[in-house]
Amino acid sequence: MIHAAKVQAAGGVRTLGFDASSPLQLSSGETLAPLAVAFESYGALNAERTNAVLVCHGLTTDQFVAGPNPVTGRPAWWPRIVGPGRPIDTNRFYVVCANVLGGAMGTTGPSSSAPDGQPYGLRFPAITLADTVRVQSMLMEALGVESLFLVVGPGFGGMQALQWSSAYPKRVFASIAIAASARQSTQNLALNELGRQAIMADPDWRNGAYLAIGARPTRGLAVARTAAHILGAPASELREKFEAARSSERFAMSAAAEVRASGASFVDRFDANSFLYLTRAMDGFDLAGDFGGALANAFTGGQTRHCVISFNNDQRHPPEESRAIARALLAAGAETASIEIDSPHGHDAHLMEEPAFEAALTGFIDSAASARGLSL
Amino acid sequence: MIHAAKVQAAGGVRTLGFDASSPLQLSSGETLAPLAVAFESYGALNAERTNAVLVCHGLTTDQFVAGPNPVTGRPAWWPRIVGPGRPIDTNRFYVVCANVLGGAMGTTGPSSSAPDGQPYGLRFPAITLADTVRVQSMLMEALGVESLFLVVGPGFGGMQALQWSSAYPKRVFASIAIAASARQSTQNLALNELGRQAIMADPDWRNGAYLAIGARPTRGLAVARTAAHILGAPASELREKFEAARSSERFAMSAAAEVRASGASFVDRFDANSFLYLTRAMDGFDLAGDFGGALANAFTGGQTRHCVISFNNDQRHPPEESRAIARALLAAGAETASIEIDSPHGHDAHLMEEPAFEAALTGFIDSAASARGLSL
Repeated sequence: MIHAAKVQAAGGVRTLGFDASSPLQLSSGETLAPLAVAFESYGALNAERTNAVLVCHGLTTDQFVAGPNPVTGRPAWWPRIVGPGRPIDTNRFYVVCANVLGGAMGTTGPSSSAPDGQPYGLRFPAITLADTVRVQSMLMEALGVESLFLVVGPGFGGMQALQWSSAYPKRVFASIAIAASARQSTQNLALNELGRQAIMADPDWRNGAYLAIGARPTRGLAVARTAAHILGAPASELREKFEAARSSERFAMSAAAEVRASGASFVDRFDANSFLYLTRAMDGFDLAGDFGGALANAFTGGQTRHCVISFNNDQRHPPEESRAIARALLAAGAETASIEIDSPHGHDAHLMEEPAFEAALTGFIDSAASARGLSL
Repeated sequence: MIHAAKVQAAGGVRTLGFDASSPLQLSSGETLAPLAVAFESYGALNAERTNAVLVCHGLTTDQFVAGPNPVTGRPAWWPRIVGPGRPIDTNRFYVVCANVLGGAMGTTGPSSSAPDGQPYGLRFPAITLADTVRVQSMLMEALGVESLFLVVGPGFGGMQALQWSSAYPKRVFASIAIAASARQSTQNLALNELGRQAIMADPDWRNGAYLAIGARPTRGLAVARTAAHILGAPASELREKFEAARSSERFAMSAAAEVRASGASFVDRFDANSFLYLTRAMDGFDLAGDFGGALANAFTGGQTRHCVISFNNDQRHPPEESRAIARALLAAGAETASIEIDSPHGHDAHLMEEPAFEAALTGFIDSAASARGLSL
């Protein structure tokens, strides 16, 4: 079905609105309406509607995958990968990226106004990663895309790509899950929980109702950012950053000041309640658990061709997690390429100049496009 | 030299006081006076003064190693190991345990009164692990113990044991470093720094001057405790504790509530500024760095017989760190036993029922006692 939807733009953020006639059915059984989905698109949908690519963004990024964010002034987060002549070539593909459900860059989330005109705060319903993907599916339908050529994303975005091909196997021709996992490791759970605690311990959090009184729990959010950094940063960068902690100066601590400074831009652009809801959705993702404990069952019967990419120094989602995904895909009979890239950059390697990574993306995408009958 | 020192007792805490005639010389070049050292002792010093054992406590424990803490009401922290008939047998040895410099259980630290009558807070000088051990050395001299039969400790306490045999090689007959390291890993540095940030982000921290106004940064301290828990807890306990974070309930979060509850008793008994100073001392410890980068040089020429014990599921100080210590000791020509214990309990295994661990302790101690000429 095509949902009743209306595109609006304000302050450079384009949103597609679903009214109460198209409520979002959440995994919890609750519904959410109205719903706005903020998205960016690049390139044009072809006449056959076969060249659509959905890029799923990570926890702390947004829909501005290939162009600057007009709200924060920050540059595109993935310009090496998405753009004219890049591996995801906007001259060739119709590329869509949407702010995730629960985010704070235009899509409905805890900082949005509830029907009573006040910010949702903790009244925002609990969401799952399946809900995140369901919203993307509503968006793609509203944009006239019945079937995606490709769904792709790193980290949290890679989890969404896996959920897409599992939940909508006939609507995904190809999928690329980058530095992702089908289930959070205990270490990730613990660090996310630590970040949530730090936010909730900040008196300015006010039980989630900080927006209504003009406060923001920036100190807690900065600590949460540092927690996320512990497994996300390359080991070498981590060493450098925290090496200063070996010196025994007083507590005008250079390391802390530096980390807090790196956190500062994050706390200015990120919403604390979104951090709570999104990490909860991520931590609750357990694709095998949804299928009786066997990950292969999540992909049985699917026609999607898969590419699974990992980085050998990624501490957040180490290659073992990608190998488990690849094994399950192969067990399910899916066409699967899996690549482990050597990089010193850890989880963030997907954002850096990594020729082998870009070559792998280009090769897989070109081959899939050819199989899809898309001309070069 | 024997320092001018006076023993006092208040509220069940026994302290030995050094006045301005015996100032503590700090690594930084500063001096600290007066200085109080809170300690407990068990058993009796023999006539030859050859049976003294110094137990060095870890970051979050205290001098009440074998008996209940009268201030907090908590039981002894190491009753399986220290007591009559236990591996460190108080019928046989004169066992001393002192609250570390910078602690908050009676030894001078940031919560103590400065000469002006106000709590030191951040005016407390920066301290190193060498300073911690220097204070213990002053204490042992004042108690009439020129040479220790044994120095032993787990984690932070094990670092102190290593520093003892390096700094005072002629005054340590035997040493046992348990689940310790000669240098903090980057992961430990990062989690400690995270804990310090969480404390300093708590508005009740008041730039360290919270005591003067009757506030306490308990929320930040609880987050710091959770951070410490991430590598300190056994993997299985960690899984259990954070598994609840997979459920997608709202933010009356059971996992968080549970962690906060486990943090609560900690925040009631621990001082936030002590956490800052002690973790800084720990993070600055780099025994090889003090000796031109070669750890073996830290032990060259020493006569101490060493035992190095690690646990195979310890994520905070994994066996590799103990192996590096054992290799350096062997390279320095020191008599060295090194044992890796299989345990599911991670770093905390030293506190649990681990027969192989207790047997190793007993065997090494009995053998050393025999070499020291101590009768059974």
